[in-house]
Amino acid sequence: MLKRISGEDIDQLEKRFRTNLINSLSGFKSANLIGTIDKEGNTNLAVFSSVIHFGANPPLLGMLSRPNSVDRHTYENIKATGYYTINHIHKDFYSKAHQTAARYPREVSEFDGAGLTPEFSGNIAAPYVAESAIKMGLSLVEEHKIAANDTILLVGQLKELFLNEEILGSDGFLDLEKAESVCISGLDSYHQTERLNRLPYAKP
Amino acid sequence: MLKRISGEDIDQLEKRFRTNLINSLSGFKSANLIGTIDKEGNTNLAVFSSVIHFGANPPLLGMLSRPNSVDRHTYENIKATGYYTINHIHKDFYSKAHQTAARYPREVSEFDGAGLTPEFSGNIAAPYVAESAIKMGLSLVEEHKIAANDTILLVGQLKELFLNEEILGSDGFLDLEKAESVCISGLDSYHQTERLNRLPYAKP
Repeated sequence: MLKRISGEDIDQLEKRFRTNLINSLSGFKSANLIGTIDKEGNTNLAVFSSVIHFGANPPLLGMLSRPNSVDRHTYENIKATGYYTINHIHKDFYSKAHQTAARYPREVSEFDGAGLTPEFSGNIAAPYVAESAIKMGLSLVEEHKIAANDTILLVGQLKELFLNEEILGSDGFLDLEKAESVCISGLDSYHQTERLNRLPYAKP
Repeated sequence: MLKRISGEDIDQLEKRFRTNLINSLSGFKSANLIGTIDKEGNTNLAVFSSVIHFGANPPLLGMLSRPNSVDRHTYENIKATGYYTINHIHKDFYSKAHQTAARYPREVSEFDGAGLTPEFSGNIAAPYVAESAIKMGLSLVEEHKIAANDTILLVGQLKELFLNEEILGSDGFLDLEKAESVCISGLDSYHQTERLNRLPYAKP
């Protein structure tokens, strides 16, 4: 027997409890670090759990920004330069990645705060995370203000991609498990994965 | 040493290879079934890997719809009724859930095609999946057309929530691993998870 919680019940929940609960509902989330730089050359790095696939042709990824939170520097930098990087978080540095969520002042780079290494390709005005084995450089192509809560959806197009060839399958599938990419549940729980199966294309 | 793939390289990739590759890039994805009903009472069920958290107050979730694909019935039904359900996919029925991606005609319910059980709460004009231990009823509050590829972002507000109380922690955190919720990578790979850690709130 499942417990029912109504919309009105949710409104009455204690703030921290509600935040944990609602953040758990969507299921497991991608775990990425977004790298940006401002016009003065200050690098910024922030953990995001909202990056999703938006389309393969053209190659697009989306993510949600809360401009009034610690995401603010990320958003401002993307608006200023037009570029950002998405870097997978792996098992061997997920604790460092989580540390980028702390509220550092603009002049302190989260790369330094978290102990991660910025790396530039020369093609994109944004820093990559040297420790990551799957990283993407994107240009901002579209943004949508979400009226319901003042968040901003950012859609970016892939400009370049760096990956460990050992995880690239002959059909284009990336073995994220072999790369030890992690996923997130709720606000603060990190998980590794174990493959159940790859399923064939579904037909009626 | 990582392999570099440029945006131009990606444009040249064989279609299926590119689809697999780009679908792998965002990281692990949530695995949910979206339940809807049309005005004639035909139920529809479709697997989505794009559901993400949009905000806790008000409680909002977002998802991406490709109206020219099998998602079309889902989108049309949500537009017609204003409601839909989001149901976690668990380890014991992920193969059935994947089967909902097949192109059934409108008069054939994916519930029947996949062997899953529709269930109505009486409060929401949309069917839940009886087999799921975490399920949400939502009303559509906002949609945004993505100009770059004609997909549609749907934002819904939580109206009611059903869950197994055994997975609800004292701080509101849901133990998705105990619920055996799965996640997806690429187009067709299903994974169970193993917790690494819950990390404390990050401070500088």
